[in-house]
Amino acid sequence: MMKNKAMVLLSGGQDSTTSLFWAKKKFGTVETVSFDYGQRHRVELKSAAKIARLARVKNSVIVIREFESIKNSALLDAKAAVSKKHKLNKKLPATFVPGRNILFLTAAAALAYTKKTVNLVIGVSQVDYSGYPDCRGEFIKSMEKSLSLGMEYPVKIHTPLINLDKKGTVLLAKKLGALDMMKHTHTCYEGKNPPCGKCPACLLREKGFKEAGIRDPLLR
Amino acid sequence: MMKNKAMVLLSGGQDSTTSLFWAKKKFGTVETVSFDYGQRHRVELKSAAKIARLARVKNSVIVIREFESIKNSALLDAKAAVSKKHKLNKKLPATFVPGRNILFLTAAAALAYTKKTVNLVIGVSQVDYSGYPDCRGEFIKSMEKSLSLGMEYPVKIHTPLINLDKKGTVLLAKKLGALDMMKHTHTCYEGKNPPCGKCPACLLREKGFKEAGIRDPLLR
Repeated sequence: MMKNKAMVLLSGGQDSTTSLFWAKKKFGTVETVSFDYGQRHRVELKSAAKIARLARVKNSVIVIREFESIKNSALLDAKAAVSKKHKLNKKLPATFVPGRNILFLTAAAALAYTKKTVNLVIGVSQVDYSGYPDCRGEFIKSMEKSLSLGMEYPVKIHTPLINLDKKGTVLLAKKLGALDMMKHTHTCYEGKNPPCGKCPACLLREKGFKEAGIRDPLLR
Repeated sequence: MMKNKAMVLLSGGQDSTTSLFWAKKKFGTVETVSFDYGQRHRVELKSAAKIARLARVKNSVIVIREFESIKNSALLDAKAAVSKKHKLNKKLPATFVPGRNILFLTAAAALAYTKKTVNLVIGVSQVDYSGYPDCRGEFIKSMEKSLSLGMEYPVKIHTPLINLDKKGTVLLAKKLGALDMMKHTHTCYEGKNPPCGKCPACLLREKGFKEAGIRDPLLR
C-alpha cells in the first residue's frame, strides 16, 4: 500500500479540478478517475480527459450503468401504475438517483485497491451541496469506514472543499495556481460551450468568481 | 416509506433464495433485485428470474459494468508494466474486485428508494464467508449507516443468515418450506446443470446438505 499515492474523482468540473491540483501538491503520485454513467453531457468526460492530460496525470474511466437500470425499473413501475390506475407517479424525477457519490466512491475505491492506492480525493462541499446528503462530512466519514471494512483495506477519503463555498473554491484554485486550468472545465447543465450563463450551475459558478473578485477564465 | 416492504438481493443461489423465503414470512410485500455484472455464469440470472416467478415476487435486474472497467484498467496497468519492466503483475487475479457487496447494496438501496422500500435483505454469512470482508456483520452495520446518511433515508439491512453455516441455512430453508425451491437454485462455479460436484461451491453445498441430513433436491 502506498500512502503517497492518491486517486482523484475527476468530473471535469471546477470543484474536482481544484481538488486535483490540491492533491498534486499533497501527494507524490496522483491519478484520476471519471465516470461514464449515462450523463446527458458527456462533454464532461472530454473535459476530464483534457484536464488530466494537461495536468500530466492518468485518467481512468469507469462505466456505470446502474442509474439507467434503476430509472428503467422506476419507469416500468410508473407504466404499470398507468395501466392499472390510469395515473402516473409524477413525484419521481426520472433522472434522479439517490446516493450517486456512494456508487462513485465505491467504484473509485475498488480501482484504487487494484493500484495499491489508499487515498481518495473528492471535491464535495457541505456548504454548497445543493441539498445532496451524500456531500456531507458525516456521510463521507461513515463511507470511509464502510469501504475500509468491506474491502479490509485502509481507505482514506480527502475532501479539500468540504467547508468551502464557491468563492472559497475559486480562491483555493488561485492559491494552487490552477486558475488557468478553469478554462477547460465544464460546468453548464445545458452542455454548452461557451456556457449558457443561465442554468443553476452557470449561475452558481458566476457567483463564486464574482465574490472572489476574479474573472472566470472560461469567459475570456 | 413502507416499513412492511422489503427488497431481497437475489443471486439465484441457495443463500439468497432462502433469504427470499425468510423475507416473505417477515414482510407484507417483497420484491427481488438481481445483478447483471458480467458474471461468467449468467445462468444465475435465469435461476433468479425463475425463482422469483415461482415465489410470485417481482424481479428487477440492475446492470453493473464497474467490474469490467476496473479489470480493464488493472489489465492496462499490467500491460504497461510488461512493456516497461518486462514483467506482469501476477499477484492480481483478473476477476477479483474487492467490495462487490458494497456496490450491490448501494444499487439495491437506490432502487429501493425509488420504490419507497426501506428494508433490504441480503443472504451473507460471516460463518461461511470464504474470507470476503464485505460479508461480515460489522461491515453491514456500517454500510447501513452510510446508505442512510448518503440518501437521507432510513435504510435497514437484514441478514437472516449472518450467523448460520451451510447446514444452518439448509435447516432454515426446510423450516421455511423452501426446500423444494432449492432444485431451481444455481450454485456450481462451472455453470453446470446438473452441477459438476467438484468445484468449491458444489462441495460446500454438498457438505451443508449432508450435515443437515437432507438430500439436495437439485440432485434428485
